[in-house]
Amino acid sequence: MIRLYHFPLSPFCRKVRLTLAEKKLEVELVEERYWEPSPDFLRRNPAGKVPILKMEQKTLSESQAICEYLDETFPTPALMPRDPEVRYEVRRICSWFDDKFHAEVTSKLLYERVNKKVMKLGYPDSKNVKFGAGRIKFHLDYMAWILDQRRWLAGDIMTLADFTAAAHLSCLDYISDVDWNRSATVKDWYAKIKSRPSFRTLLADQVPGFPPPAHYADLDF
Amino acid sequence: MIRLYHFPLSPFCRKVRLTLAEKKLEVELVEERYWEPSPDFLRRNPAGKVPILKMEQKTLSESQAICEYLDETFPTPALMPRDPEVRYEVRRICSWFDDKFHAEVTSKLLYERVNKKVMKLGYPDSKNVKFGAGRIKFHLDYMAWILDQRRWLAGDIMTLADFTAAAHLSCLDYISDVDWNRSATVKDWYAKIKSRPSFRTLLADQVPGFPPPAHYADLDF
Repeated sequence: MIRLYHFPLSPFCRKVRLTLAEKKLEVELVEERYWEPSPDFLRRNPAGKVPILKMEQKTLSESQAICEYLDETFPTPALMPRDPEVRYEVRRICSWFDDKFHAEVTSKLLYERVNKKVMKLGYPDSKNVKFGAGRIKFHLDYMAWILDQRRWLAGDIMTLADFTAAAHLSCLDYISDVDWNRSATVKDWYAKIKSRPSFRTLLADQVPGFPPPAHYADLDF
Repeated sequence: MIRLYHFPLSPFCRKVRLTLAEKKLEVELVEERYWEPSPDFLRRNPAGKVPILKMEQKTLSESQAICEYLDETFPTPALMPRDPEVRYEVRRICSWFDDKFHAEVTSKLLYERVNKKVMKLGYPDSKNVKFGAGRIKFHLDYMAWILDQRRWLAGDIMTLADFTAAAHLSCLDYISDVDWNRSATVKDWYAKIKSRPSFRTLLADQVPGFPPPAHYADLDF
């Protein structure tokens, strides 16, 4: 049995959920209030964060390491290509979203608007929100520039890079922070990912106090 | 020809330098004042950071992606093991240092003490320095706990996990922020890494205004 300790609007958890679902691995989701860590949770994970994946006596942390491990142990369908050049590009884009996009956008919009309230840390800092709202435009333009040259973010096949980017964007879309009118190319790419069966679990997420907008779960947004 | 745009006391650049040196790949080092990005630099690297590796018309960024790419294209000596379980552990520990250790220690000590001065951003924030000085103890203890069970950080062979950890610790050692007396196990591990020929280039680094302590380049510290 596979169990994932997660938080619904965590892009890192969503990345693992998408990978598990693409591999058709059944998982029991356990919501973890990681900001109120219990001794039990810290024993499972000294880094004190989600996602944590439990499978066959193993406790795995760090989303990128988990996803690559799942891809190596359950190779079908492959989310990492074989060619080293494309593998590099997949990993570069995963880092781009997990580091740069996360620091400039996810943490500035999602964490200010949602996590702060859920964790009772006060009101959103409007300077951060303004910064994030500005930077997401640059990132959408960067994606559009890439997707004008390739079918998918790292090349001509769908890879972990696409699921990583979609994990971040889907969290921001939940709070209506993605302007899909900015680029038809990016919107088309997201529509393709969003309509995959693996995405269904994400589209069913509900965070109390934050009802998603109507377009969030709509495949024809 | 391989060229690396770098900053001497960047753990991410050091990780790439160690990987190149282990693979016996000759590299021209170009110091990049990445906090004063020139249009030329931003064209090379839209993420606006170091390291940037130029090889055969390619421009590569993101240290983990670069190191895994180098390991896949120049497989000897291998810095990634073959077994998926150990590969997972290598990547988990790389993330541990590049994310958690970086956020809690490297950015709090090195960036406050060195980068702020070099970048003319003012004086170290004593709250951050105090926090980092406290957290490094936890991380050294965590390493000791791991190294009491295994010869190297991810298992019984030396991997990218060891070079990633050593890249961070070597930067902190340059400013005397590592208490090597805390754990004989960790000190022994570092002595083994430090005496490798690949480490020589790091031990020769000099940052103007920050002379390294005598023990920094001493293999018998």
